[in-house]
Amino acid sequence: MFSIGTINLEILQKNAYNLRWATVPEGVIPLTAADPDYPCAPEITESIIKYAKDRYFSYGPTEGQPFFKEAMACYFNNKRNIPASAAFILPVDSAAFGIDVVCRAQLEKGDEAIVFDPVDFLFKYAIEKNGAIAKSCPISTDPSDYFDITKLQSLVSPRTKMICLCNPLNPIGKVFKRSELQAIGEFAIEHDLTILSDEIWSEITFKPFEFVSIASLDEKIRERTILVTGFSKSHGLAGLRIGAIAAFDPNHYKSIVEASFHESTIHGSNVLSQVAATAALNQSEYWLTAFKEHLHSIRDLTINGLNAINGFSCHFPQGCYLAFVNIKETGLDSATLYKQLYEVGKVAVVPGLVKWFGKGAEGYIRISFATSHEIMAEALERINNSINQIH
Amino acid sequence: MFSIGTINLEILQKNAYNLRWATVPEGVIPLTAADPDYPCAPEITESIIKYAKDRYFSYGPTEGQPFFKEAMACYFNNKRNIPASAAFILPVDSAAFGIDVVCRAQLEKGDEAIVFDPVDFLFKYAIEKNGAIAKSCPISTDPSDYFDITKLQSLVSPRTKMICLCNPLNPIGKVFKRSELQAIGEFAIEHDLTILSDEIWSEITFKPFEFVSIASLDEKIRERTILVTGFSKSHGLAGLRIGAIAAFDPNHYKSIVEASFHESTIHGSNVLSQVAATAALNQSEYWLTAFKEHLHSIRDLTINGLNAINGFSCHFPQGCYLAFVNIKETGLDSATLYKQLYEVGKVAVVPGLVKWFGKGAEGYIRISFATSHEIMAEALERINNSINQIH
Repeated sequence: MFSIGTINLEILQKNAYNLRWATVPEGVIPLTAADPDYPCAPEITESIIKYAKDRYFSYGPTEGQPFFKEAMACYFNNKRNIPASAAFILPVDSAAFGIDVVCRAQLEKGDEAIVFDPVDFLFKYAIEKNGAIAKSCPISTDPSDYFDITKLQSLVSPRTKMICLCNPLNPIGKVFKRSELQAIGEFAIEHDLTILSDEIWSEITFKPFEFVSIASLDEKIRERTILVTGFSKSHGLAGLRIGAIAAFDPNHYKSIVEASFHESTIHGSNVLSQVAATAALNQSEYWLTAFKEHLHSIRDLTINGLNAINGFSCHFPQGCYLAFVNIKETGLDSATLYKQLYEVGKVAVVPGLVKWFGKGAEGYIRISFATSHEIMAEALERINNSINQIH
Repeated sequence: MFSIGTINLEILQKNAYNLRWATVPEGVIPLTAADPDYPCAPEITESIIKYAKDRYFSYGPTEGQPFFKEAMACYFNNKRNIPASAAFILPVDSAAFGIDVVCRAQLEKGDEAIVFDPVDFLFKYAIEKNGAIAKSCPISTDPSDYFDITKLQSLVSPRTKMICLCNPLNPIGKVFKRSELQAIGEFAIEHDLTILSDEIWSEITFKPFEFVSIASLDEKIRERTILVTGFSKSHGLAGLRIGAIAAFDPNHYKSIVEASFHESTIHGSNVLSQVAATAALNQSEYWLTAFKEHLHSIRDLTINGLNAINGFSCHFPQGCYLAFVNIKETGLDSATLYKQLYEVGKVAVVPGLVKWFGKGAEGYIRISFATSHEIMAEALERINNSINQIH
């Protein structure tokens, strides 16, 4: 299911935007946005076709289709050991919007929220969009380094209202250990903080690492957690714009529904995308297992290949299909290296700019490896050759 | 195509939310939300199936799929006589979101915008959501009354930045005449106002009335117009959440893209919905023509039936599949009459509450007639019987 023959480059070149195949000149390999090159599970398409054949696309319910809310609740209960209730799950137009909604619901102007650094830009962006202030907590780019909770202490003020957790952590690929999560949870209790847990990468982990949700730990931590997830990384459904927010405190849920603007129909969750996401949850587990096996073997190819390149060093990610490469030894900054790889190597990567990942990303590039062995081998050879031309 | 046999009540009872079949108890006829009871054009479903079969739902482009932007531009040029450019058309997640985006792009805190009264609540809601102030201009509930531009003069202050036009006007069914639009356009020029033209109902007009877009009049008016439209009223695609904003001033377009939050992926337009909307524009004109013919005959049945009821009076709408019924002669306010019709008559209507349509709607109820003759005849009989029980 995950060989080069399964990838339809013609379709990708026509349809895969967001820094991918449809946005680079022919001949360039885009290892940029975290969006798989493989077609989605056939069950997802079949469910879309089945629903579409009735030819009714009327308004869905404000708080989401009951079948999708139930499927999400079952998933959280059975696979994540989280006693979630369908009544407090809100389907939303992407996990990114979910993060924005939680920030709007939880933060007032001048409030503060803690984010790790490096981490994907969306936390900081959504916090600031809603008039609040993001306080950065540096975290090691080695995913196996234990996260020291004492680093958080100095960041807390009377205005601190929330801590934002991205687990597994994009871009460093860290899967938080149960004990690390327990410490973060207790810290949140101690300072009366909401925990925004972005778990969009939770399906993408590599053995022996296993994902644990902070919402599964205990009730005191869970009730202050708001969980956001989506289907773009695990199932390739970014273009269908579907995610979900799960709350465990009825007041959180109420404020989230209000902040979503679903009641006014200004926002809402696409009915067909909820059908697709339900099939992803209920019918495509076998596909996800195979996808993860493929990702595991391509991770090893990718990281070993990158570490063999002059001046590159890279830890094995525990989760996420991302390599976060330290390129400091090349003597180039990430923007210059990006340019060299793009222009000479014909490979597009994401430079570790402050605006994408925070200050802690400078001197790094990010590479997405959700592609085939053949494409990755070719990309690695091109990267190696273009780096050798510098030295 | 538009007989009782075409309506699949079983599917509607399962899927049609937003005050419709899936949200009323069995036995109640919902004439509430403006959402058709008929399945959509088969070409729309076929286009969804064709796209879905490739099994790629990757991110679409931030500013929308080129094929949809082109289809919208052709539609504006060929059917609306508006020289629109695909480069300045932004596909968005519903016309409602489009209105919100335009308000955010154009209005600052404390700015003022003029809205008609009665009109659908979304203008006022979006204006206030973005920190600005809505100033109401009363308009006659008789759609054939000529709109007197002098009524607008007293509403203008140095903070007035925008005038919001809903054409055809929900709930009164007025299709603005060319000369009325010309006067509104000149008023906007005189006071340097942006014109937000909500044209979501533009496909639903009844002969001899013909829709004219204010953006088709002349360049000076067009360049200050921002047009919003969607596919829920004309093609029954509310659940697919797809609309579009067209700008004619590059600076407007730039500010709209920024205000849409598409760049950050917090919002975006569903790829499959853009495929569906393209089929609606390019392949289902015959379906729309037949739908309008059906609506014309059911309009006459509905309005004649309503006018035969004690204490009801109702003008023939020129556009929209809505009857806006004056119920003042019944001696009941709209909330009480709503209750009587719902509990005794088992018919759900929209009461003319300030929160839905403004002050000018008190003493009115709104009825949507995008259903079959049989269902409407039954509803009219029930309404008549329950009104007779009062007298």
